[in-house]
Amino acid sequence: MKVHVHVSLKPGVLDPQGRAIHHALEGLGFEGVNDVRAGRLIELDVADSVSDEALDEMCRKLLANMVIENYRIDKLETA
Amino acid sequence: MKVHVHVSLKPGVLDPQGRAIHHALEGLGFEGVNDVRAGRLIELDVADSVSDEALDEMCRKLLANMVIENYRIDKLETA
Repeated sequence: MKVHVHVSLKPGVLDPQGRAIHHALEGLGFEGVNDVRAGRLIELDVADSVSDEALDEMCRKLLANMVIENYRIDKLETA
Repeated sequence: MKVHVHVSLKPGVLDPQGRAIHHALEGLGFEGVNDVRAGRLIELDVADSVSDEALDEMCRKLLANMVIENYRIDKLETA
């Protein structure tokens, strides 16, 4: 089973990487970009026996820093 | 308009970050994890006037390294 975990900074948390990307896009001449936030995408390939609770626990224990980040779990397929 | 850009390593490209996460999950006692790949998620807030071609060019010029990475553009809403 393919699982995508999206980890993004919570609103209000300073995002220097996003600001750097924003600045670089403007430097390249792209217009109309209002905001950029940088996050992580973690693609897991797990056995079908892995429960939603286990996935949630992986995120809370390791993949995301719950103090400053939110996560979203997308289950893509059940092969 | 909210746009999410998913950047992931191409298949076959070594992913030390993904391996480290995989190893850490096993160390925490999680079972059934077959593979982990680490990528980036870039959340853009752009004006509605920004074309698909411009978004594509942003990815190719800055957001993704086309030699080793793939990208996918998800347009979330047209406010």
